[in-house]
Amino acid sequence: MSSLAIKIDEVMNLASLAFTEYRKLSGAIKAKFIKQITDEIEQIGDELIHTVMEETALPEARVRGERGRTVNQLLQFAEMIEEGSWVNAIIEEGNPDREPLPKPDLRRMLIPMGPVVVFGAGNFPLAFSVAGGDTASALAGGNPVVVKGHPAHPKTGKLVADAIHRAVEKCNLPQGTFSYIEDSSYDAGQLLVKHSQTKAVAFTGSEKGGRALFDIANQRKEPIPVFAEMGSINPVVVLPKAQEKKYKEISKNLVASVNMGAGQFCTNPGLIITQKEGTLDLFLQALGEEVMAASPTTMYSEGILKNYQTGLSSLLAQDGIATLNLEKVDISGEKAVPVLGTVEARHFISNPEMHKEIFGPFSLVVVCDSADQMEEIAKVLKGQLTCTVHALEEEMEDFKVVIDELMMRCGRILFNGVPTGVEVCAAMQHGGPYPASTDVRFTSVGTEAIKRFVRPVSFQDWPDSLLPLELQRENMLGIWRKVNGRLTKD
Amino acid sequence: MSSLAIKIDEVMNLASLAFTEYRKLSGAIKAKFIKQITDEIEQIGDELIHTVMEETALPEARVRGERGRTVNQLLQFAEMIEEGSWVNAIIEEGNPDREPLPKPDLRRMLIPMGPVVVFGAGNFPLAFSVAGGDTASALAGGNPVVVKGHPAHPKTGKLVADAIHRAVEKCNLPQGTFSYIEDSSYDAGQLLVKHSQTKAVAFTGSEKGGRALFDIANQRKEPIPVFAEMGSINPVVVLPKAQEKKYKEISKNLVASVNMGAGQFCTNPGLIITQKEGTLDLFLQALGEEVMAASPTTMYSEGILKNYQTGLSSLLAQDGIATLNLEKVDISGEKAVPVLGTVEARHFISNPEMHKEIFGPFSLVVVCDSADQMEEIAKVLKGQLTCTVHALEEEMEDFKVVIDELMMRCGRILFNGVPTGVEVCAAMQHGGPYPASTDVRFTSVGTEAIKRFVRPVSFQDWPDSLLPLELQRENMLGIWRKVNGRLTKD
Repeated sequence: MSSLAIKIDEVMNLASLAFTEYRKLSGAIKAKFIKQITDEIEQIGDELIHTVMEETALPEARVRGERGRTVNQLLQFAEMIEEGSWVNAIIEEGNPDREPLPKPDLRRMLIPMGPVVVFGAGNFPLAFSVAGGDTASALAGGNPVVVKGHPAHPKTGKLVADAIHRAVEKCNLPQGTFSYIEDSSYDAGQLLVKHSQTKAVAFTGSEKGGRALFDIANQRKEPIPVFAEMGSINPVVVLPKAQEKKYKEISKNLVASVNMGAGQFCTNPGLIITQKEGTLDLFLQALGEEVMAASPTTMYSEGILKNYQTGLSSLLAQDGIATLNLEKVDISGEKAVPVLGTVEARHFISNPEMHKEIFGPFSLVVVCDSADQMEEIAKVLKGQLTCTVHALEEEMEDFKVVIDELMMRCGRILFNGVPTGVEVCAAMQHGGPYPASTDVRFTSVGTEAIKRFVRPVSFQDWPDSLLPLELQRENMLGIWRKVNGRLTKD
Repeated sequence: MSSLAIKIDEVMNLASLAFTEYRKLSGAIKAKFIKQITDEIEQIGDELIHTVMEETALPEARVRGERGRTVNQLLQFAEMIEEGSWVNAIIEEGNPDREPLPKPDLRRMLIPMGPVVVFGAGNFPLAFSVAGGDTASALAGGNPVVVKGHPAHPKTGKLVADAIHRAVEKCNLPQGTFSYIEDSSYDAGQLLVKHSQTKAVAFTGSEKGGRALFDIANQRKEPIPVFAEMGSINPVVVLPKAQEKKYKEISKNLVASVNMGAGQFCTNPGLIITQKEGTLDLFLQALGEEVMAASPTTMYSEGILKNYQTGLSSLLAQDGIATLNLEKVDISGEKAVPVLGTVEARHFISNPEMHKEIFGPFSLVVVCDSADQMEEIAKVLKGQLTCTVHALEEEMEDFKVVIDELMMRCGRILFNGVPTGVEVCAAMQHGGPYPASTDVRFTSVGTEAIKRFVRPVSFQDWPDSLLPLELQRENMLGIWRKVNGRLTKD
């Protein structure tokens, strides 16, 4: 074994050992631990803010906002496990007198799966990295977590990892409850996913990276689930009447969303689909003016900027593409220049190169001749995190099929909004049909994300006093349970 | 394309077409359809019973019982979707005045995934075949179903498929809502799983078969979930005091469970783990007497019998194995002879051949020297559908670690019972860590099985009148919903 393999073996075995203890803790104790993590993160103070800014070039307000989001996200999970109903307790009482066979007593609840390996995102150095949503949901579910550091923000990663380590220590939890691997090599990732003690994987990043991990995990002797959130182009459909009535407002909001945070969001609206109508010229003109007025921004790493520039050049070289940036665009600088492309639907439909995500402040405006062509486009789209419809309510019925097709292809569908800004709450679905994510049945944002890392277990005729509190006759935790088909707290 | 490929392409395209309509039906209409299926099945009458008996050699009482179970299972799903709360509606109302950003209105519910391909089981020609639990849960979830026929019961399969076709017709549903592929070749299975319109797969059968489908599905350009329930050896641990006090009763129940239905259950107790204690000899003697008294039974196909005999011969040839059948066993006849093997723990621990499932009326009694050795065994076990503990309550504490290890390795844990007899209800978990099933997060028996074939979608700021009824402001369906964090029917 290489020294890296030995290191990872040690870390995963520690996690496995910690699991035997950590998984049995009550919701209250796990919640206390998670709250302690938020305290420790807050106590790093401005050092954390400045480190993130230095490593990622994100502006201060955004970094402070993201810290708030990270803390708030952890607290939402803490609150949920403190309350306890999330285990989805289902109780069917037995009946020894049932004919022809006695009915057994069955009690079912969600329990943790085991050590979870988390690959954080580069674009969210706090909210989707070391103490981000994946870590929060895995820990809340009762699973030890091993985070592989992201190369774009090693110092930030270390600061946050140390904060979690302090929380582990202060709460007297086993050391392996949380581990941080500073090695960000591909080998380290591969070894982590292959390790027999790893029971699930969470990843946020590129389609290529996510698919590679997914393949490794599924080729294991004992396959494990990989929840990879791999982003998408997040189509925005602008229907004719909305275009006519609101092209100015829509242009302004869309370009702001495209250029926000240098477009470094997996929900960046990368595709704008509209129709040739009386106001198309005005709409395109307004979009052009907005994008010309938008400022180039520094991206979080040079590699990401380079990818943006290469991807964009290659796309702009495709047949039929023009830009709405009225002056000739020089995209080769040190900042990411916001660009809007435009193309006729027939080119888009026949050229899969145009369906790829370009990570950065870019969006492609696709112009359709007719509602039928819009339908055709909807049908060739791959799986998406989000789809957005800009419309007047009265015209929705005429575009029913388009809207339906969009809904079948995404995890979240928006009306008259922008897809950026992913609310952290129980009603959020962040994940979509492949390649938006590898398992459409789960979300990676919001409290339902805990479901990725837990599994149901049924106890049959188990002695009451030896059952988990959640399933005992007396509902001491006061949680919601489905008892003999009825939801109740009794 | 081969004629088979053309046929399957047609069937899957029909299913996909049906999906656009079927998925939009209300719970009430889908429930009516499912109830119609039960009517049609019941109306086949004794012809169905006799056909199953002829094709599978199962006794009449069992076949009648299984028909009842199949109908009851369908009705449970119908009842659940008629009531409607299963969609897990979560509503977070918006707040335009929130600072620094307005809070969007988010509404989340479960929606169907698309055409599901079902591979029925040979051992349950009704309850886990054409109109079995997989078909019932997929249809209930709003997905068209394509069933690949099982070679062991082609006539039964056709009878039931025709019943479903009649229900489709009587309910005026699109033709592709249900299809039945009579071709039971491996090629047909592979083509079905590879087809781009297939969105999920359910399978019940061998580890080899399930893994093959799982691999094909994961190697697709767009991977799809495969829920394969592949069986297990279902360890039964008999603790010392229970052994001493109840060896007679335990022996009787265990052997009955092992030999029931010729042992053709995925929950057959294939492993009995106990300790060397004062009463071990009596326990083994009682087990021996019971197994000698048990009658050989016809299995459902010659291939299955042959597999049983070959697997058993190979196991009995392993180092350290003896049988508890006191006379020399001739297992080569036309019926499956019930057999109990016995082996010392050290042999079992070091020989993975002994950890394999032998499908049929066989169980291996493993004798441990100590509680520590029992722990060691628990730790080398693979994933299981069930684990069972026979104990007096007072001795449970002393074997805490053993019990804990068992629980980590199974989907259902039983106290003083037998694992055969899988109750169909909401509290059932039928599925376990790999290789018991390919996705431990789901069950294939009981109403929760619907969750395998649905996915969440969130509507953001969507016009109320265009939302699905489940998510509209006024709760017209009267279902349970989580509104702003509170479970309510308001």
